Amino acid sequence: MEYRKIKDEDEVRDGAIEDVEKSFLLSVPDNTSSSGRETKTDIHRTKAKWKRKSVVTLALTVLTSSQAILIVWSKRAGKYEYSVTTANFMVETLKCAISLVALGRIWKKDGVNEDNRLTSTLDEVIVYPIPAVLYLVKNLLQYYIFAYVDAPGYQILKNFNIISTGVLYRIILKKKLSEIQWAAFVLLTAGCTTAQLNSNSDNVLQTPFQGWVMAIVMALLSGFAGVYTEAIIKKRPSRNINVQNFWLYIFGMCFNCVAMLVQDFDAVMNKGFFHGYSLITVLMIFNHALSGIAVSMVMKYADNIVKVYSTSVAMLLTAVVSVFLFGFHLSLAFFLGTVVVSVAIYLHSVGKTQR
Amino acid sequence: MEYRKIKDEDEVRDGAIEDVEKSFLLSVPDNTSSSGRETKTDIHRTKAKWKRKSVVTLALTVLTSSQAILIVWSKRAGKYEYSVTTANFMVETLKCAISLVALGRIWKKDGVNEDNRLTSTLDEVIVYPIPAVLYLVKNLLQYYIFAYVDAPGYQILKNFNIISTGVLYRIILKKKLSEIQWAAFVLLTAGCTTAQLNSNSDNVLQTPFQGWVMAIVMALLSGFAGVYTEAIIKKRPSRNINVQNFWLYIFGMCFNCVAMLVQDFDAVMNKGFFHGYSLITVLMIFNHALSGIAVSMVMKYADNIVKVYSTSVAMLLTAVVSVFLFGFHLSLAFFLGTVVVSVAIYLHSVGKTQR
Repeated sequence: MEYRKIKDEDEVRDGAIEDVEKSFLLSVPDNTSSSGRETKTDIHRTKAKWKRKSVVTLALTVLTSSQAILIVWSKRAGKYEYSVTTANFMVETLKCAISLVALGRIWKKDGVNEDNRLTSTLDEVIVYPIPAVLYLVKNLLQYYIFAYVDAPGYQILKNFNIISTGVLYRIILKKKLSEIQWAAFVLLTAGCTTAQLNSNSDNVLQTPFQGWVMAIVMALLSGFAGVYTEAIIKKRPSRNINVQNFWLYIFGMCFNCVAMLVQDFDAVMNKGFFHGYSLITVLMIFNHALSGIAVSMVMKYADNIVKVYSTSVAMLLTAVVSVFLFGFHLSLAFFLGTVVVSVAIYLHSVGKTQR
Repeated sequence: MEYRKIKDEDEVRDGAIEDVEKSFLLSVPDNTSSSGRETKTDIHRTKAKWKRKSVVTLALTVLTSSQAILIVWSKRAGKYEYSVTTANFMVETLKCAISLVALGRIWKKDGVNEDNRLTSTLDEVIVYPIPAVLYLVKNLLQYYIFAYVDAPGYQILKNFNIISTGVLYRIILKKKLSEIQWAAFVLLTAGCTTAQLNSNSDNVLQTPFQGWVMAIVMALLSGFAGVYTEAIIKKRPSRNINVQNFWLYIFGMCFNCVAMLVQDFDAVMNKGFFHGYSLITVLMIFNHALSGIAVSMVMKYADNIVKVYSTSVAMLLTAVVSVFLFGFHLSLAFFLGTVVVSVAIYLHSVGKTQR
């Protein structure tokens, strides 16, 4: 019901914007020169929007692919010596700190106003922990699914995320994809899965029924968390993204603090909070923090669909870069998957104009 | 130059038909009731055309997939005991006989006229052996490519045929595919290749340069033969297909007779023409003959693009039927390839309406 409400408000707002745009158009015969200026401003605004969208998407792609490369690098360098929960907590803290620094600069420049002040109503803040809870449940399930599927199989089943994001994006945010864009989304799923095929992939077909159900539930939880985050962030488009991020990450810090206490209390007490940290750990924390912020930006200025395409391309980029960095070999399946994903991206953009 | 000429004549003819259609349309204001009847006839004709196109395409798909199943069956039943060249000759002879029987019935019904009489000008007949020659060259090359690629690798490289058919169809027949249809064609190639992936497929990436060149040349020859056959058959649309088939198959008989004498002269002389024939051999000959005729029909009433889609679907159907008949296992790659091919077919039909 909550999402419906969000969506309805969204539609009302969109409607209002459309009305403003229409009144622009209607004013054309009255004053051609001024409306000419307005149209230019309009084009300028559209271009700026498009540029911002491209920049955040590119940032997400580059950060996600370097993230995977850092993970491979850290694995090659040896086992994790540090407590993973402390690193996760540091990521949330860093994101929070970055949001506050960015806010400070904005306050200095524009002064504090309704849209960028940190204080908020309970009504606004109460929905922010929900994505964090959803991710927590998903991460807990992750421990259980390995009873039914091995790790490479899980990587393949994770591609259900793509489809679930598309379906939930359609149902919850009520945004339409054209038929060709749906076809492109199916291709994106098939292409990503194909690119990940290896000689043991067929084992995944032997996954027991419970494994399939859990994989689908996890995909739905993950897709739901993503779409819900978009709904929260887009609910008040004028609200400054750094404030929205601050509130998202404060709850992230809380949840990760609990996880740290539950899982690694002894290690942290005996060996210290930063035990086992290396240069690569610090790099990974910075990378995770920045890609987390990039995801928020993509939610604000683009959408979950763009996010899914961006992370899929990042997956392919990672493999190609790994060839040069770690001497990995690319398979024929990877090549075919890349072709299918490329065609999917092309169709997604072509499908948009024909909508 | 020859194809250009064919094409130009084709355009002139199409132009003439268009003129006739236009004059229909122009007559509308003069006599509404009669033009109403004409429009109905038009719709009826379009429906009949569509039905004929569907029937021949379906026939080709079913015949091609049962062909592959017969080959698997015959391999399971033991090695070929008969001379393959005699079987090929029998296929051509049977096709010729079927065309003559069909012609005989048409003559009885409609009488002999300009379009269905068997005698022909040298100018018309001279191009008919060209596809047979192209296929002969391709088949000769087939012996040499196995020096560079193994049999499963060759199956994968054969998917170049799909792309080459599309490119030559565009260049030689000057028929346009929409951007989405091109995307669909790339997907068809990637999907068919994905469906054929197995644990040894990556070996094909080690194919030496000569192997790639030969595979591409063979794909071009095969695509060229197909597109050229379509050009010949469509050159005179009013010409009866059975006459056109008769001339195609007469040259097929000649070429296969030569191949038989060169390769299996001794075996035929010592053991007899039909040595080693079994029920399955006879079934395969009938199947090959009927699918050959179906290919001609598809060329006449549809085109090479439809043929490629039809044979790709047949490839997938064969695999599915083999699960039930021979207990084959379907791989995840096969499933993903099938998804991609299905989306390609969907996009091809959607792309058509948006052209």
